[in-house]
Amino acid sequence: MSFNQKIADHARLVEARLDTLLTELAAGPRASARLTAALRHAVLGGGKRFRPFLVIESAALFGLDATDAIDTAAALECIHCYSLAHDDLPAMDNDTLRRGRPTVWCAYDEWTAILAGDGLLTLAFEILSREATHREPAVRIALVAALAEASGAHGMVGGQMLDLEAEKGGGHQDRTLSDIRHLQAMKTGALIRFAAEAGAILAAAPPKDRVRLQRFGEVLGFAFQIADDLLDVEGDASEVGKAVAKDAAAGKATLVSLMGIEAARARLLSLEAEAVALLAPYGDRAQPLIEAARFVVNRRS
Amino acid sequence: MSFNQKIADHARLVEARLDTLLTELAAGPRASARLTAALRHAVLGGGKRFRPFLVIESAALFGLDATDAIDTAAALECIHCYSLAHDDLPAMDNDTLRRGRPTVWCAYDEWTAILAGDGLLTLAFEILSREATHREPAVRIALVAALAEASGAHGMVGGQMLDLEAEKGGGHQDRTLSDIRHLQAMKTGALIRFAAEAGAILAAAPPKDRVRLQRFGEVLGFAFQIADDLLDVEGDASEVGKAVAKDAAAGKATLVSLMGIEAARARLLSLEAEAVALLAPYGDRAQPLIEAARFVVNRRS
Repeated sequence: MSFNQKIADHARLVEARLDTLLTELAAGPRASARLTAALRHAVLGGGKRFRPFLVIESAALFGLDATDAIDTAAALECIHCYSLAHDDLPAMDNDTLRRGRPTVWCAYDEWTAILAGDGLLTLAFEILSREATHREPAVRIALVAALAEASGAHGMVGGQMLDLEAEKGGGHQDRTLSDIRHLQAMKTGALIRFAAEAGAILAAAPPKDRVRLQRFGEVLGFAFQIADDLLDVEGDASEVGKAVAKDAAAGKATLVSLMGIEAARARLLSLEAEAVALLAPYGDRAQPLIEAARFVVNRRS
Repeated sequence: MSFNQKIADHARLVEARLDTLLTELAAGPRASARLTAALRHAVLGGGKRFRPFLVIESAALFGLDATDAIDTAAALECIHCYSLAHDDLPAMDNDTLRRGRPTVWCAYDEWTAILAGDGLLTLAFEILSREATHREPAVRIALVAALAEASGAHGMVGGQMLDLEAEKGGGHQDRTLSDIRHLQAMKTGALIRFAAEAGAILAAAPPKDRVRLQRFGEVLGFAFQIADDLLDVEGDASEVGKAVAKDAAAGKATLVSLMGIEAARARLLSLEAEAVALLAPYGDRAQPLIEAARFVVNRRS
C-alpha cells in the first residue's frame, strides 16, 4: 500500500471514530443541539489527520493494531481541532475560512466557538479516561499526563501565546532563530511529539523507546515547520520571483528567512536522515513512519 | 472551630497550594511571562473556595487529611476559574469586574484571557495526572473521568451553552422550571456534585458512598441556586419593594420567579433536611458538610 493510500485509510478510520464519539455525545439527554452541531463542524470533514496517523503508526511499531490506538488518536485530534476553533476567533487570528469552509465562529458565532473549543478540550481528556482507550489505568493516566503537558502552558497554548505576543506587539521582526524554534517547538511541535510517543505509552514500552520516539517527534516537528516555511517561499518565488524579499517586507522573520533557503534545505535533509536513523531499531514496522518523514521533507503542497 | 473559621482556613490552604502550583508553572524555561501572570490573575486572590472546601471535607468523611485532597481541590478550582475567565469575555457575558478586580480580559486582553482559560483547563487535568494527587493511577484516572464529565458538554460547558442560547436568543422569558433546573444542574450543579463525590473517589470508597455523595452534591447545588435567586429577590425587595415584578420586567424567568418565594423557601428547608439525612452514616465527621449545607440555605449575602 502506498503512503498516500495508507494516510487516507487511517484518516477515514479516525473520521469514522470521531463521528461515532460525537454522535454518542449528542445522544445524551442533556446535550445542546447547537453545541453538538458546532463540535461536529469543528472536528469532522477534513484534514489529513496527520497527528492521528502518527499515533496509529507509532503504536504499530510495538505490534498494536489501529483499533488499539484509535481513541488516543481521536483525543489528540480533539485537542488539535479545539485549538483551531479558538485560534480562528476574531480576538486571535481572525480567520473566516478553514479547509474551504467557514470557521466555527463564522458558521455559528464567537461564544459558540469559545464553548465548542472548551467542550472539545474537555472531551479529549474524557476520551483518554475511558477503558476503551486502554484497559490499564496506569497507561490511561500516562496519556493524560503527556497530552496535558503537550497542549498546555508549556506546550501548544504557551507557543500560541508567544506567537501572538510577538505578532500583536509588533515584535515579530525582531525574533531570532532561537526564539522561533522555541515557539514552534511549543506551538506545533509539542502535539507532534506527543503523537509520536503515544505508541510507546500505549504499548507500555521501556523508557528508552519513549525517549527515542519523543526525539523522532521533535525532529519531525522541526522538519514540518521548515518545510512549511520553504513552501511559502517557493510558492511565492514561482509566482513573483522575490519571495524572501516579500517575507521581509511583511516584517515577519521565519525559520527560512533567518537560516537562508539553502541552509534550510540542507537542514531538512539532515533531519530526514536523523528521523530514519532513530527508527532503525524497529525494522520493517517503521516503514510508514519513515515514509511520513520523507513526506514531510519532500512535500510540494 | 466555627464554620466560618474552617472555610477561611481551607481557603488559605487552597490559595497557598494554587500559588505554589502556578509558581512552579512559571518557573519552567518555556513559560510566557504574560501568560503566567494572567493565570495568576485568574486564579489567585479571592473567593470563598467553596468547591475546594467540599472536596477537602468530603475526603475527611473517609478519614483523609486536607493534604490528601488538596491537589484535587486545586484542579477543580482551576476549572472553576477558567470558566469565569471565559464567561467574562465580551462575546459571552461581557463582564469587566469580578471580586472587585478587573476581569482577565480587562486586565490583559481578549486573546490572553482565551489562552489563559485554555491553559487553566489543561492544567487541571495535568494536576490530576500527577502522583502528588494520589498514588494510585486508578484513582487519578477516575478523578479525570469524573471532572471531565462534570465540566464538559454534558456538564458546565453544556449548561453555559443552554443559558447563553436562551439569553442571546431572547428566549429566557419562555423557560420552564424544568428547563432552568436542567441548565443549572449542568452549569453550576455539576462541579458542586463533583466536589462532593471527589472525597469518595480519593478514598476509593464503595460505589454506594459515591452515589450518596453525588446525591448530596446535587441537593447542595440545587439549594445553592435557589438561595442565590432568593437573595436577588430579597435584596431587591428590601430596597424597592417589588422585586419579583422587577425580575419579570427584566424578562428573565428564575427558579424563584417560577416557584414563588414561599415555595422556594419551603423547598430550601426540605433540601437542607435531605442533605443532613444523606450525611447521617458518616457521624461526626460530616459536621462540616452539614454546616456547609446550612450555610448555603441560610446565607444572607
